[in-house]
Amino acid sequence: MLGEIIAIGNELTSGRIPNTTSGFAAHHLFKAGFDIYAMHTIGDTPKLIGEALKRALGRVDFVLVTGGLGPTEDDLTTEAVSEALNRPTMPNLEILSLVRQHLSSNTEQPISSLEKLAWLPEGAETLSPKTKMAGFQLIHNNKPIFFLPGIPHQMRTLLVEQVLPRLATWYDGKQLTSSQKVFKIFGKTEIEINHDIKALTLEKNVEIGYYPVFPDVHLSMTIRGNDARKTDHLARKSIRLITNRLGSSMYGSERDTMESVVGALLLDSNKKLSVAESCTGGLISHLMTSIAGSSDYYLGGVTSYANSMKTTYLKVKESLLEKHGAVSQEVAIAMAQGMRIKSNADLSLSVTGIAGPGGGSDDKPVGTVFIGLSEKNETTAQRFLFSGNRYEIQRLTAQTALDIVRHHLLQTDTSDFHE
Amino acid sequence: MLGEIIAIGNELTSGRIPNTTSGFAAHHLFKAGFDIYAMHTIGDTPKLIGEALKRALGRVDFVLVTGGLGPTEDDLTTEAVSEALNRPTMPNLEILSLVRQHLSSNTEQPISSLEKLAWLPEGAETLSPKTKMAGFQLIHNNKPIFFLPGIPHQMRTLLVEQVLPRLATWYDGKQLTSSQKVFKIFGKTEIEINHDIKALTLEKNVEIGYYPVFPDVHLSMTIRGNDARKTDHLARKSIRLITNRLGSSMYGSERDTMESVVGALLLDSNKKLSVAESCTGGLISHLMTSIAGSSDYYLGGVTSYANSMKTTYLKVKESLLEKHGAVSQEVAIAMAQGMRIKSNADLSLSVTGIAGPGGGSDDKPVGTVFIGLSEKNETTAQRFLFSGNRYEIQRLTAQTALDIVRHHLLQTDTSDFHE
Repeated sequence: MLGEIIAIGNELTSGRIPNTTSGFAAHHLFKAGFDIYAMHTIGDTPKLIGEALKRALGRVDFVLVTGGLGPTEDDLTTEAVSEALNRPTMPNLEILSLVRQHLSSNTEQPISSLEKLAWLPEGAETLSPKTKMAGFQLIHNNKPIFFLPGIPHQMRTLLVEQVLPRLATWYDGKQLTSSQKVFKIFGKTEIEINHDIKALTLEKNVEIGYYPVFPDVHLSMTIRGNDARKTDHLARKSIRLITNRLGSSMYGSERDTMESVVGALLLDSNKKLSVAESCTGGLISHLMTSIAGSSDYYLGGVTSYANSMKTTYLKVKESLLEKHGAVSQEVAIAMAQGMRIKSNADLSLSVTGIAGPGGGSDDKPVGTVFIGLSEKNETTAQRFLFSGNRYEIQRLTAQTALDIVRHHLLQTDTSDFHE
Repeated sequence: MLGEIIAIGNELTSGRIPNTTSGFAAHHLFKAGFDIYAMHTIGDTPKLIGEALKRALGRVDFVLVTGGLGPTEDDLTTEAVSEALNRPTMPNLEILSLVRQHLSSNTEQPISSLEKLAWLPEGAETLSPKTKMAGFQLIHNNKPIFFLPGIPHQMRTLLVEQVLPRLATWYDGKQLTSSQKVFKIFGKTEIEINHDIKALTLEKNVEIGYYPVFPDVHLSMTIRGNDARKTDHLARKSIRLITNRLGSSMYGSERDTMESVVGALLLDSNKKLSVAESCTGGLISHLMTSIAGSSDYYLGGVTSYANSMKTTYLKVKESLLEKHGAVSQEVAIAMAQGMRIKSNADLSLSVTGIAGPGGGSDDKPVGTVFIGLSEKNETTAQRFLFSGNRYEIQRLTAQTALDIVRHHLLQTDTSDFHE
């Protein structure tokens, strides 16, 4: 079953706002067994909207349209559809009463603009009868068309809760099965990974794709067929081959992130981490605490951006800062030790470096970073040279620091296991 | 001058990777005076690539194609174009020699896949003769077509350094002028802002758009014309009207971010900030240090995720934590004070709350956050209730905290001015 996605909005064609909704929809439709023939982004121009919709209806089985359903004057999707498909708009009484209820408790809001939300093309069925989200469905020439708001979280809710179940019912039994797996790799280039994987003998209908997704490379494996058992069997076999081949450069798969993987390893080894950050300015801490439940293994940290913070909070000696400079192996070691001891952590990371654009020298150019790791019996620090802009250097530093913790915990884990 | 953008890649139509390049290109083309008729995203399928290219050439003045130029087997753009436009591929000797030089110093890399980069459709001109980036230009039926790699940073470099100057030369003198301004607003809804702006009398060709861009709302103003002086004059006049109307809910414009605006205010008032974060886990610190030069006004902070960090690093009394709980006005005040005094800052923020999904209670549901602000003479803390998922609550908290610093500095600034 083939579909097309049409995203509408001048904010998208002028590039002012990135289009995140089409990718999200494509991802969920793909997972549910539907292929996307094409995705289009066009402006809030009724003529263009009508043309794109009619062209899509002529070549695919269903269409998803997002954006332009809001209450303001620049939202023109509903009238464009009404015109293109020759379906006059009429008020949906359910929505109208909801809007009026809302208005009676909010006398300051402009009435006419909100009431606009209740006028839909003939034959439209609302997708969110009990909420204030816009969104409706039309069946035209026996093909379903879904209209969703452009606001990402509303669009996502309606796609998952309304569109996917409706499409599944509509096409029941006709869909192919597909199996996709994504492997996440840090520290190798696309070409190096390609070279590794080409040495494997994978079956013909196992499709492999390589995608640099900063700071990682993702490898995707896709298998399609019409026999779910065979597809699953081949998938399991291929996943084993690829996983073995990639080894520890593969840190996870699917929705794993470096921080979720490190978090799980800390939890399993019952160790608490704290972090002293200079050039990453809180990014590592932010990544660690983006995971729900991270308070079970993450204590917190110090962002010692100024040198005074390094001496006050991390007990780095001023003489050390003077002798070696803040960006040095010695200071990275002192930061990690100071952090671990005072926070009473099992493991502490430290980061000090030059994220740029200023601050570089011949000796220590922009991108020079020292990463330290302290445990009860040992504290070490390594020197790195990263390239990119300020954000890229900060992000590469954070990912590398977390990868150092990952390798450290994997090694500890393995030796425990063998002893 | 009208263009179309075609992005190619199965990773995009399956939604595995978000398409960030098309929006970037549209933004820069729009700014340079070119309009985008439509943007399309299609898979790595030669037939689809050829059709989309030919259709675009039939209706617009130039085409930008991104993706599918890499060295691996799933990169099929070049051969698809060769087939569709009937231009056989031939080796570009300049690229070939570059690739071979690279290979001779890297014997481990697979030869054939890299040499593929040198084979281009007849008539193609490389866009990056001296680098290892793929990218070429074709003039077909007197219309320029640009092919850029899908890797975002390469695509961006070539777009800005090669495509925009070439297009400007190609269409010299034929382009319209356009003026666009984006206003950034935090703390008001799209409808509230729309209501405010509708009360203004703006001239007819001033187009206004409203876009919720979490956690902000952006308002865009676009004016097009063929007389640069008139357009600029009208733009300046309209900007004044809109700026006055929005008042202090507008925190900035164009590329401003809340953190860049707060940074500039701190710099101007010669004050140093430090931050004690609990539920935002380093996000505020990360935002502050994303700005180059932030070491001039940002000292750093403590991420006191665990309670032990609050007592050790922020001198919050255990009795206070026991009596009121970590998420309380009293603890927010103690955190802000403790942070300011020990770090020797002029101004310190503190944040303590429940980002969820767990940890809520009837009394303090998920989303409950206290934000404290400490200055030499006064420390205050306010209670908030945010809604959304974990990330949204963290992001809203961080933006609100920075907005509190912004309003505080603006008030201090104003009173100095009047006295």
